[in-house]
Amino acid sequence: MSKVRVCVDVMGGDEEPQVVLDGIDAALAADTELEVLAVGPAELVEPFAASRDRVEALVAPDVITMEDDPIKAVMTKRKSSIVIACRAVKKGTAQGFFSAGATGAITAAATAYVTPFRYEADGKREPIRPCITTAVPNRAGGLTVLCDMGANPDVEVEDMVRFGQMGAVYSQLVCGVAHPRVGLLSNGTEDTKGSHFTKACFPAMRDAVPGFVGNCEGTDLLAGTVDVVVTDGFAGNVALKATEGAAKMIMSELKGALLSSLSGKIAALLIKSKLSALKEKLSGDAVGGAILLGLKGVVLIGHGATSVEAVKNGTLATARAIRAGLVEKVAGSMDGLVE
Amino acid sequence: MSKVRVCVDVMGGDEEPQVVLDGIDAALAADTELEVLAVGPAELVEPFAASRDRVEALVAPDVITMEDDPIKAVMTKRKSSIVIACRAVKKGTAQGFFSAGATGAITAAATAYVTPFRYEADGKREPIRPCITTAVPNRAGGLTVLCDMGANPDVEVEDMVRFGQMGAVYSQLVCGVAHPRVGLLSNGTEDTKGSHFTKACFPAMRDAVPGFVGNCEGTDLLAGTVDVVVTDGFAGNVALKATEGAAKMIMSELKGALLSSLSGKIAALLIKSKLSALKEKLSGDAVGGAILLGLKGVVLIGHGATSVEAVKNGTLATARAIRAGLVEKVAGSMDGLVE
Repeated sequence: MSKVRVCVDVMGGDEEPQVVLDGIDAALAADTELEVLAVGPAELVEPFAASRDRVEALVAPDVITMEDDPIKAVMTKRKSSIVIACRAVKKGTAQGFFSAGATGAITAAATAYVTPFRYEADGKREPIRPCITTAVPNRAGGLTVLCDMGANPDVEVEDMVRFGQMGAVYSQLVCGVAHPRVGLLSNGTEDTKGSHFTKACFPAMRDAVPGFVGNCEGTDLLAGTVDVVVTDGFAGNVALKATEGAAKMIMSELKGALLSSLSGKIAALLIKSKLSALKEKLSGDAVGGAILLGLKGVVLIGHGATSVEAVKNGTLATARAIRAGLVEKVAGSMDGLVE
Repeated sequence: MSKVRVCVDVMGGDEEPQVVLDGIDAALAADTELEVLAVGPAELVEPFAASRDRVEALVAPDVITMEDDPIKAVMTKRKSSIVIACRAVKKGTAQGFFSAGATGAITAAATAYVTPFRYEADGKREPIRPCITTAVPNRAGGLTVLCDMGANPDVEVEDMVRFGQMGAVYSQLVCGVAHPRVGLLSNGTEDTKGSHFTKACFPAMRDAVPGFVGNCEGTDLLAGTVDVVVTDGFAGNVALKATEGAAKMIMSELKGALLSSLSGKIAALLIKSKLSALKEKLSGDAVGGAILLGLKGVVLIGHGATSVEAVKNGTLATARAIRAGLVEKVAGSMDGLVE
């Protein structure tokens, strides 16, 4: 394995920073070629870095919280861990960034500072629209990629084409699918189904997205019938949140049913660990977190309810994406990029 | 209870017509003031009606199948059970119609023949857009209404306002919620979240929909945090199908986990009946099926994988909606209707 350097946000997540620091230690133990740039307040990152060979401190006195308005916070809290980390990736001080902080703020800071690839339109260089991508385990035992999962509630046809192209590369490099089947999320699988918008996307994706298999529907997200589900961030968010809601409902119904009898209580113990493992996998932990595709650097977002294991996995996943050349291969999947 | 007459589609559903006939018998036994107009081929409905006091036959030689193109089938198969039934409701031969046939065809036929209420715009009378509505059980032990669940992938702001008004009446009359909380499905609960379209709907719904509580998200569909979830048919379909997919995934994971050990096999038996009951409830069986709101008659759609119990429940639910005056009260919830 080659040496890589990942910037990790010590202030990301709902837990104490110590959880993140322990997660970094676990990642360093698992990957001996990994170096970490720990970003956060001096009193945390400096002593942590001083006592470790493969850690450097990057001091960031400010913190962006889950309550902050994302855009405003990125503009005003220039010394926050998220902004400073994104600038470090841009400068090349680190090749990737992992944070379990606020998704909106990380997306805004990464778009502003890590910056998206650009294409030329009418003589001007325009940034492509990055998308937040995750992979969820499916019933066929594989992983299904969902892009966009919430960054962009309103998109254009050409954005959806790029989401499909980028999602396919992610499926190949991260989920190990040689020839990903890419589906367009719709309200039915027939070619004639869809909104005006998805009907406009259909022929454009058919022409430009390798492995395009046509429309898919909400059930396909976890079925293993397609490898990549392409949608705008509005429907993507609805699909993910509905999945989460169904999981909660079923688990609460099961709990009620099981705890009402002694034999049921025994059954509950038997399935408890299975259920919580599944719950974690469904929230994106299977691949370490959500990734921003289309940027000139690897930026991975863990979910806020974090743990030592989740920080370790997210940091290692960031390192793997860097080593796999994800950024370059994603850029190579799209026509007409100028930088 | 008052006498009501419900038209039931003998050819609806994936099962043998005998399942529907048995379901009608079960409904007649449960509701002694119910009369049924059984619509289907003469050789089925005539002998069935001849041997029963409260059944009349309505002969329909044609059948619209799940494979037919809905609009085309309704236009060409004028002697199909679905078209003939909708015309019977329009004429008043029956006050409502229950079918487990093809949703698209029933929606098309009901819109064409039962017809929606109208409003006046620029001196012309325009039909309002009906919506397909269902109710799913929520974690709070109640029922959450979802409208639209798939009929209209592209809608206008005024359609969404009416969906909210109609959904609230449905929640009151069918789910027994005195003051329904109506949410707008979005990609987050904050007021600022949404697509351009839902952001345009927000103020219009706030002004015109009683009980409007702002944005809700996919998790709210089953959480019991709102009583009515309003959305276009595209996102509504995505939400419902994602819910269905999650249920399938969790059940298959549980099965795998449980069947791998003897104690697990015992646990599987314990939760099996609970799981299948929940699966049925999530597919709309809790209220007998999906209903078309905004039409001048009660039209209820059961799902295709039907059973004697489902036909019985759907027929009884249709009768209850008629007795509750659902059609008139739905019309009364909207301003500016002219007929």
